[in-house]
Amino acid sequence: MSAISDKLIERLTLYHGILTHTVPKVDYIASSEIANLLHIDDSQVRKDVAFCGVLGRPKYGYATKELKKAIEDKLAFRETKDVFIIGAGHLGTALTRYADFRDYGINVLALFDTDKEKINQTINGKKVYSMACFNDLVKENKVDTAILTVPPQEAQKVTDYLVKGGIKFIWNFTPCILRVPADVIVHYENMISGFLKMRREGG
Amino acid sequence: MSAISDKLIERLTLYHGILTHTVPKVDYIASSEIANLLHIDDSQVRKDVAFCGVLGRPKYGYATKELKKAIEDKLAFRETKDVFIIGAGHLGTALTRYADFRDYGINVLALFDTDKEKINQTINGKKVYSMACFNDLVKENKVDTAILTVPPQEAQKVTDYLVKGGIKFIWNFTPCILRVPADVIVHYENMISGFLKMRREGG
Repeated sequence: MSAISDKLIERLTLYHGILTHTVPKVDYIASSEIANLLHIDDSQVRKDVAFCGVLGRPKYGYATKELKKAIEDKLAFRETKDVFIIGAGHLGTALTRYADFRDYGINVLALFDTDKEKINQTINGKKVYSMACFNDLVKENKVDTAILTVPPQEAQKVTDYLVKGGIKFIWNFTPCILRVPADVIVHYENMISGFLKMRREGG
Repeated sequence: MSAISDKLIERLTLYHGILTHTVPKVDYIASSEIANLLHIDDSQVRKDVAFCGVLGRPKYGYATKELKKAIEDKLAFRETKDVFIIGAGHLGTALTRYADFRDYGINVLALFDTDKEKINQTINGKKVYSMACFNDLVKENKVDTAILTVPPQEAQKVTDYLVKGGIKFIWNFTPCILRVPADVIVHYENMISGFLKMRREGG
């Protein structure tokens, strides 16, 4: 998957979203329909689909099941990744309930929090553990990925703890920029930039 | 703001995050420190800061307050936008409580839901209204932007309703691709692609 650009990842996940949610029961879809839904160029869609190795059928378009599977293969959706969610607040809860995570190979194993009222609760079938159990559960389950949804003022302290426990990938939903060793990868789920991009598109 | 690329928006918001959350009390910051925190090239940081019109002071670096203000000006953070959040579930609640929205010019005016138990509740000082009030409140407050956090199966139906009510910008947190007229802009907050990008960076 390392050869795929950011923009291509974004487009392929949107095509997959169309096949999953917009036309789940349709057998064929034309490149022009995908292009129209996303307000992008038809030629771009055809290029991307060719990259996935899918050929269209004249007058019909692409077989939706075949295209969906090809995108899943390209984006490695089938390689399930176990993750822990750190912070069982509203955002952590929303992410635990996000049904698409499972379709896309993201398997939330458990949540962690420091709030005694939340510990031992169950969210969407996933248990909330005390942070004190984190190190043991990381080792036991060989988890290397954490989703960070703690309050900003806790973000760095918690990150240090995660890194010490062996976490190598942090999907960061806090607005904080985190200090981590060179072998730890932080992905900033930068919501503000999403908003700014949308407004810019409005001219 | 229309000349700024996606990547530049992303970097500038991350620089702003450093100034706001990582070194809030420091007077000067070196380009190398910003570069190290984000694991990017020093020369990239210098280029971006120059684009914002900020000059460094030899041996000190950039004045943090000046740089922060310059980024806010470039990204138009000071032009406050009123928005409505559609869906008062966990994600809608988390976004309503997201303190950074306010700093970055996003002003959540109110939430909307169809659940009688949620209507008339208050979240972080913002009232949850019935969807039946939506059209009137859009007109009254001249709001053109909605944040969509409803369940996937409701997303298109609710979108049609928002568009009919006059909404021109939809910040879509659902995984659904939405059918909208050409003059309506949808920004897909594509969380799955964030995850895939992070994993790809791991090689």
